[in-house]
Amino acid sequence: MKKEGMAEPQREPSRNSPDNKEPTRSSKGIALDRRKFLTAAASLVGMAAAQAVIPSLHAEAPSSPPVPDDPTRVPGAPPTPYGQRAGFEQATRLPGTSHSLTPLQTLHGIVTPAALHFERHHNGVPTIDPARHRLLIHGLVGRSRTFTMDDLKRFPAVSRLAFIECAGNSAGEWREARGQTAQQTHGLTSTSEWTGVALATVLREVGLKLEATWMLAEGSDAAAMTRSIPLAPVMDEALLCYAQNGEALRPEQGYPLRLLLPGWEGNACIKWLRRLKLGNAPFMTREETSHYTDLMPNGIARQFTFVMEAKSVITAPSGGQQLRAGFVEIRGLAWSGRGRVTKVEVSTDGGRIWRGARLQEPVLPKCHTRFRFPWQWKGREAILMSRCTDETGYMQPSREDLIAVRGFNSVYHYNAIQSWKVARDGSVSNDQV
Amino acid sequence: MKKEGMAEPQREPSRNSPDNKEPTRSSKGIALDRRKFLTAAASLVGMAAAQAVIPSLHAEAPSSPPVPDDPTRVPGAPPTPYGQRAGFEQATRLPGTSHSLTPLQTLHGIVTPAALHFERHHNGVPTIDPARHRLLIHGLVGRSRTFTMDDLKRFPAVSRLAFIECAGNSAGEWREARGQTAQQTHGLTSTSEWTGVALATVLREVGLKLEATWMLAEGSDAAAMTRSIPLAPVMDEALLCYAQNGEALRPEQGYPLRLLLPGWEGNACIKWLRRLKLGNAPFMTREETSHYTDLMPNGIARQFTFVMEAKSVITAPSGGQQLRAGFVEIRGLAWSGRGRVTKVEVSTDGGRIWRGARLQEPVLPKCHTRFRFPWQWKGREAILMSRCTDETGYMQPSREDLIAVRGFNSVYHYNAIQSWKVARDGSVSNDQV
Repeated sequence: MKKEGMAEPQREPSRNSPDNKEPTRSSKGIALDRRKFLTAAASLVGMAAAQAVIPSLHAEAPSSPPVPDDPTRVPGAPPTPYGQRAGFEQATRLPGTSHSLTPLQTLHGIVTPAALHFERHHNGVPTIDPARHRLLIHGLVGRSRTFTMDDLKRFPAVSRLAFIECAGNSAGEWREARGQTAQQTHGLTSTSEWTGVALATVLREVGLKLEATWMLAEGSDAAAMTRSIPLAPVMDEALLCYAQNGEALRPEQGYPLRLLLPGWEGNACIKWLRRLKLGNAPFMTREETSHYTDLMPNGIARQFTFVMEAKSVITAPSGGQQLRAGFVEIRGLAWSGRGRVTKVEVSTDGGRIWRGARLQEPVLPKCHTRFRFPWQWKGREAILMSRCTDETGYMQPSREDLIAVRGFNSVYHYNAIQSWKVARDGSVSNDQV
Repeated sequence: MKKEGMAEPQREPSRNSPDNKEPTRSSKGIALDRRKFLTAAASLVGMAAAQAVIPSLHAEAPSSPPVPDDPTRVPGAPPTPYGQRAGFEQATRLPGTSHSLTPLQTLHGIVTPAALHFERHHNGVPTIDPARHRLLIHGLVGRSRTFTMDDLKRFPAVSRLAFIECAGNSAGEWREARGQTAQQTHGLTSTSEWTGVALATVLREVGLKLEATWMLAEGSDAAAMTRSIPLAPVMDEALLCYAQNGEALRPEQGYPLRLLLPGWEGNACIKWLRRLKLGNAPFMTREETSHYTDLMPNGIARQFTFVMEAKSVITAPSGGQQLRAGFVEIRGLAWSGRGRVTKVEVSTDGGRIWRGARLQEPVLPKCHTRFRFPWQWKGREAILMSRCTDETGYMQPSREDLIAVRGFNSVYHYNAIQSWKVARDGSVSNDQV
């Protein structure tokens, strides 16, 4: 870190600071009359107005906005109805053809901004008018019903923070260390505060029959995505969600309505939800026969493996980043579809010594948990790893242990310990141990 | 709510549902070949492509995007690097000349989306290049230092959810029921997950002197906003924040760096923070002499009244909304700058009978807490109120009790119980009791 010295571009103290000893500008000299500015701002738009009075502007990187030499000498932009992030911030999801990955390595805390929540859709993001959207509930119920969005919002609501992880997150890591960054290896998981009505509340309303044990959930996207959901394990927590991080669901996350099954794989949390059919057996859709099964070494495919087991990843330092010698806070995320994370351990020597990381409060069930671990990097090669234990006592497996059980045939539910290799030059890369 | 019947525009079940009994389309007839779509999507942009193949489109309200009759028959939009909300969602901050109000009545849960976090600035929102931004710490310290943003991000980080409320929130309510909506009466409070370095960590680094008891914090906006902060009460919790809800601070909330003093009035949480000067007395800036004091009935102004006391507001039903007879979940927010909310009570009869509301977990200190209260509205006139008690035992005062102590001279720190009047026609309006 730098020693001593004043800040370069903004070196002058405020003109209205009572402790301003420097004989610089008078309050008159700068002519930033607040009333005049507000009047001007009212008739002009944003920085376009402000920039007109700036004597000199820096044009930095091509994507950066023009910046005044001294922001205290230039009236700022007026309030706006709906804010945007700073032009300097360029972190994005990494889009594929039918998914996009959250940039975990750039994020802080546990909340994923909705704009950066990962995506996975099977035939694109539909455009749905919420006023015309309906949810049909039928099958083994006392009376079939359709619900408007207004109907659903009138029920008692529930909010909770929860992660959603795609079953295929880290699928590229089965055979080789393929992902170059944490975004590429682990970017199909995100956390939001979700709000909706409890599935149990709505099923009570339609008179769920005693013999109903499974439910078909269907989306109104162009894939008409469908999954069979066993009722017993989800009745306590399943939500029909219409809001995410305070505002309406984003289109990519199922606007206007999605199913949330906390801790279960993302594809079962049907988005753009339009239909629930109650039955007494699984419906065997293509998504649970040709897809979303786990092929074991003996050729048998495990079906309906919904729960996302405990997993963690160090997001900084992580692949593609560059380390400087000295103090480094190792930061990452841990989560478990079985409940709360109770322990995260970090190793900086490829798994020989493990020490407990600090868990950032709040630690919530079925939610990303931020962990932090202080480290001094002395310029030597290192292998960084994290492993998570959840409230059931289950510990995230090593790659070796996972493959011993699962083999190499699987696509989904890869939750092995991730290793990042720090080279002597400080570069960090994916390196399976 | 509607009885029975299938959904109108999307009445046909999925073609690939195994329980599809209707003799409708064959999988061939719709010709939604996934591979073809993905290839097409790669060379076209979003719905522009998808719309070209839609036989008929509804153009709804002028602001709504075109919507296919049946979204399952139209390939959806491809993934995007940075998501936007649905075109149907139009909730906005309500901008004044130097502030904008959060639309509390449209929000869910406790997290405020960054785009809708209230604003308050004293000479506009500056544009600051984070690579050139510096924080100077000087005065009663062992060695003055400037820190780059990279320097600050290398320190151990802390994340927490916390509300920030403007001292002037609800200021219009002192003399009359002026605000027509919850946004107008209470929209200067918002909650985010903030991440940064603890003030205590950075002050340890510069060698805080024993005699230092106050700190001047200065922003690099065009008002060079400055406040004096007593150190003792903030050392445990104050943060120098660079992130909000996972991503970088938004420009309106102090990008690239702001002070967060959990539970204290927003103006003291200096945004665009560029300087901390340590001293042994308050610095008496204009913001604590001409502004941000509380003028009492006896003509004496209380100074340095930083803490935002316990407060709550019913956000639904609230002013400007329209009620329908039957079940209504009364929903609102409660918060206290002193710690956790321990109880929220709701009255539907103007304060004669109070009953406990359910607090939505997680209930976090110095953070918005969502409360819910089930109610049957039978079409009669009603006065809805909420009152909050915090972990210190302090209970939010009635308007009468607040004014008995504070009189009518004050601008800041109005935290009286808010009343909403429900008329027989279901219209809801601000009505002081």
